[in-house]
Amino acid sequence: MKFIHSRENNAPYTVINVGDIKIGGGNFTVISGPCSIETREQMNLIAKSVKKSGAKILRGGAFKPRTSPYSFQGLGEEALLFLIETKERCNIPVITEIMNQTQLNLFDKVDIIQVGARNMQNFDLLKAVGKTNKPVLLKRGMANTIEELLMSAEYIMSEGNKNVILCERGIRTFEKASRNTLDLSAVAILKEKTHLPVFVDPSHASGINFLVAPLSKAAIAVGADGLMIETHNNPQAALCDGEQSLDLNEFEELMKDVKKRVEFEGMIL
Amino acid sequence: MKFIHSRENNAPYTVINVGDIKIGGGNFTVISGPCSIETREQMNLIAKSVKKSGAKILRGGAFKPRTSPYSFQGLGEEALLFLIETKERCNIPVITEIMNQTQLNLFDKVDIIQVGARNMQNFDLLKAVGKTNKPVLLKRGMANTIEELLMSAEYIMSEGNKNVILCERGIRTFEKASRNTLDLSAVAILKEKTHLPVFVDPSHASGINFLVAPLSKAAIAVGADGLMIETHNNPQAALCDGEQSLDLNEFEELMKDVKKRVEFEGMIL
Amino acid sequence: MKFIHSRENNAPYTVINVGDIKIGGGNFTVISGPCSIETREQMNLIAKSVKKSGAKILRGGAFKPRTSPYSFQGLGEEALLFLIETKERCNIPVITEIMNQTQLNLFDKVDIIQVGARNMQNFDLLKAVGKTNKPVLLKRGMANTIEELLMSAEYIMSEGNKNVILCERGIRTFEKASRNTLDLSAVAILKEKTHLPVFVDPSHASGINFLVAPLSKAAIAVGADGLMIETHNNPQAALCDGEQSLDLNEFEELMKDVKKRVEFEGMIL
Amino acid sequence: MKFIHSRENNAPYTVINVGDIKIGGGNFTVISGPCSIETREQMNLIAKSVKKSGAKILRGGAFKPRTSPYSFQGLGEEALLFLIETKERCNIPVITEIMNQTQLNLFDKVDIIQVGARNMQNFDLLKAVGKTNKPVLLKRGMANTIEELLMSAEYIMSEGNKNVILCERGIRTFEKASRNTLDLSAVAILKEKTHLPVFVDPSHASGINFLVAPLSKAAIAVGADGLMIETHNNPQAALCDGEQSLDLNEFEELMKDVKKRVEFEGMIL
Repeated sequence: MKFIHSRENNAPYTVINVGDIKIGGGNFTVISGPCSIETREQMNLIAKSVKKSGAKILRGGAFKPRTSPYSFQGLGEEALLFLIETKERCNIPVITEIMNQTQLNLFDKVDIIQVGARNMQNFDLLKAVGKTNKPVLLKRGMANTIEELLMSAEYIMSEGNKNVILCERGIRTFEKASRNTLDLSAVAILKEKTHLPVFVDPSHASGINFLVAPLSKAAIAVGADGLMIETHNNPQAALCDGEQSLDLNEFEELMKDVKKRVEFEGMIL
Repeated sequence: MKFIHSRENNAPYTVINVGDIKIGGGNFTVISGPCSIETREQMNLIAKSVKKSGAKILRGGAFKPRTSPYSFQGLGEEALLFLIETKERCNIPVITEIMNQTQLNLFDKVDIIQVGARNMQNFDLLKAVGKTNKPVLLKRGMANTIEELLMSAEYIMSEGNKNVILCERGIRTFEKASRNTLDLSAVAILKEKTHLPVFVDPSHASGINFLVAPLSKAAIAVGADGLMIETHNNPQAALCDGEQSLDLNEFEELMKDVKKRVEFEGMIL
Repeated sequence: MKFIHSRENNAPYTVINVGDIKIGGGNFTVISGPCSIETREQMNLIAKSVKKSGAKILRGGAFKPRTSPYSFQGLGEEALLFLIETKERCNIPVITEIMNQTQLNLFDKVDIIQVGARNMQNFDLLKAVGKTNKPVLLKRGMANTIEELLMSAEYIMSEGNKNVILCERGIRTFEKASRNTLDLSAVAILKEKTHLPVFVDPSHASGINFLVAPLSKAAIAVGADGLMIETHNNPQAALCDGEQSLDLNEFEELMKDVKKRVEFEGMIL
Repeated sequence: MKFIHSRENNAPYTVINVGDIKIGGGNFTVISGPCSIETREQMNLIAKSVKKSGAKILRGGAFKPRTSPYSFQGLGEEALLFLIETKERCNIPVITEIMNQTQLNLFDKVDIIQVGARNMQNFDLLKAVGKTNKPVLLKRGMANTIEELLMSAEYIMSEGNKNVILCERGIRTFEKASRNTLDLSAVAILKEKTHLPVFVDPSHASGINFLVAPLSKAAIAVGADGLMIETHNNPQAALCDGEQSLDLNEFEELMKDVKKRVEFEGMIL
């Protein structure tokens, strides 16, 4: 069977256009922003800072998948509004997570739709985003194999949408020193099997601030096409995932290093 | 925090009524039927047979979550029609899996809504089924902890629907001799932590026909409130999961043994 | 290849003789005793009690494999002395764990040599115990497959010693509510693949006192040939693994239930 | 408790001397050679080639831990002889795996003793090598946590031998596209917790030739102090693990890249 995601029957690399930004095919792209969108001011502040540091795309969660129904669930539609305002004011494309296909109409001005790890096999959602032509960042599920990730991408592509970015974000193992176990072999294997761009999310993979920098370096070296890094203007006060977020200075420092490494690899930041 | 699912602040056992059938609280209930609903005749044949053998509830998949978009996806709404017809003709309550909350209106005559393993943390779906008063069978995700399963039940219950049945169906581990690793400790732990009924699905847990009987026996002994067992009139020709299905004679034989074991445990079949 | 452990080319069941006691082939055998041998008086007390309750073999650790070099390592040779004295005074066969092949000469009067989970692939030790004719209880490693367990048994058998008892004791997974995940499917699979007796150790599998009884029941139902259960006269004061040990009354109660279940299965206790 | 392995109470970095070679503390060291020592000629050929390419230490297995007793078990003492001859002829330090403490006398001229993954918690072996002053390369077990690895190092160090090199070589997970899942987060965590050098073995971690180069690059970037890479003059004909070995040209190419990357990191090859 010839899968649409397979490198065998296709061009070696897919380049995905997000406004002026090119993803894949020798370009290296950093996505950054807070776990949760909290206020208009926060988003404005973070967007300006991470853009200045070299991030090309702004992330921020409006609808948060949380284990407990009593945890903060995100600000919802109001947060989407803040995100779009920030996009327009700061001139930076934005990505945010969709929770189900009935929300698609809210994502008109969102540049990249994120399908989260818990929804990697929410097949109706995959088909629905496959019927749009918006770029989709598809995260690997915590217990999903590389092959299953590719088949979930195939669900999207078989509906017509070829703009799929894969994202490794750690799998569940017995090891508890990190929240998940980042599987960087998966990046190398995916680059062998598919023409789609492959990103790495070291923040969710590790769950710990001090691991974000070394895992980012390793992700660049192993061949990833981009990084997705959580940042916050004040991680201690973050409503969600503060312990894994970089503050804006830490991100600036990391990006100086990232630039050198991307250049070393012969890629374009 | 006092969770609604917790045994600490509640009656020790919840009994869920499905028509005349009682689930939990010393009752042992067997759900059986095919992975996929294929034809009207098949459902009629299987329903009569498994009911005669002692199953109290009929299962059958209309919408099938499949890894590949090119695999058989279930017959969809037509299959629901066959299921409801069979329910009425054979006078047996039915359970089938929902894929997303927009399908809820199709589930009016379905007696128990199944939320599958891949949707265990589809929180919008959980909230939606929580707003109905229909019994929900919630399957543990392949990489989800016992605590996460309870918190997903809490999503449903916190919306008002207290009729939640939990179902252990195997977790992902390094072992490949069985498709998943059935975690029977989880059943004993759940019975300690929650008043909700706990079922076991040995068919999906093992993925192999010959393991269904020994795992069913173990599930009864460890304290489960019920079993969910895949059966098919002709497993070799099944459109889905034939290798783990029991044929109708095997199921009849197993049920003879199940009856003796349930009686031994002082439970009511 | 015809493996010596395989049921295909051999009698369906191996019966292992330990003094008057028969293991396997329809016999159900309970091994019990403390994690660590602490004093002569303790062993005497426990041996009498567990024997009266129905245990056929006494366990007790002399050399303890501990994660930290600073944890209690067992009393060593003195403990072996206490164990043998207890064996002779109470007329009960004994099992204890060997740590390496240079200790073999100390095990002359030990009835069953235990090879622990951490040594399941200590191939030189396997070969060494394979050159004796003493029964060996071989525990599955925390990350070892069923096939690897069988191949480790093959190491022992290929040296001439056919008296191998396999023991499932839980594998490492992401779930942390129990110390390990007891894999009862493994018991059913092993009974299909090999003629060797298969035991279950619910104490080490779960690491929690309240799980020992339900997992013991499940192990009998799934087809195990025996159980290995940690007991202690005063679990709160145990030098090792107290939180998973049953006290002597709890064990007596459990054994009353075990007897009924073994009889139900048509086995001989 | 102040552990000897802990960075808190010690110098930030341990440098281990192997002849003229320094391991740790800003030095980057590559170990290379075949899985199994096959012939004198083979070892001579490989040693010259990998040394020329930049490897500082020669590896080769004399005693091979194999799952099946019927697989090739290594040439044993004869292989040790070949290894020592090659060491002296080619003037390159050598490392080989010990299987149990009774072999210690055979390791007099071996420069680094390897304790394999299956022996990581063979505590008697750890204590025995702890009583020597030879450098020990301690591999992480397939199901062992980072903390357990450190405590196994502590076993060696608490006996007096401070020359311990840790080695991450992949853990067992549900993913089967690579043989094991290389846990590069573990390297970053270990560098935070301990002053001991940390190596990575991408060959055993991945089990696949094409993954060795990308994982080597990632290991350098994440902060490892060295690599252990399997090479063979003719991988197709290797008696063991040929599918993961690099041929000598592939290794030469990889080392050109490794040199640039080590320099980029400000380390000394």
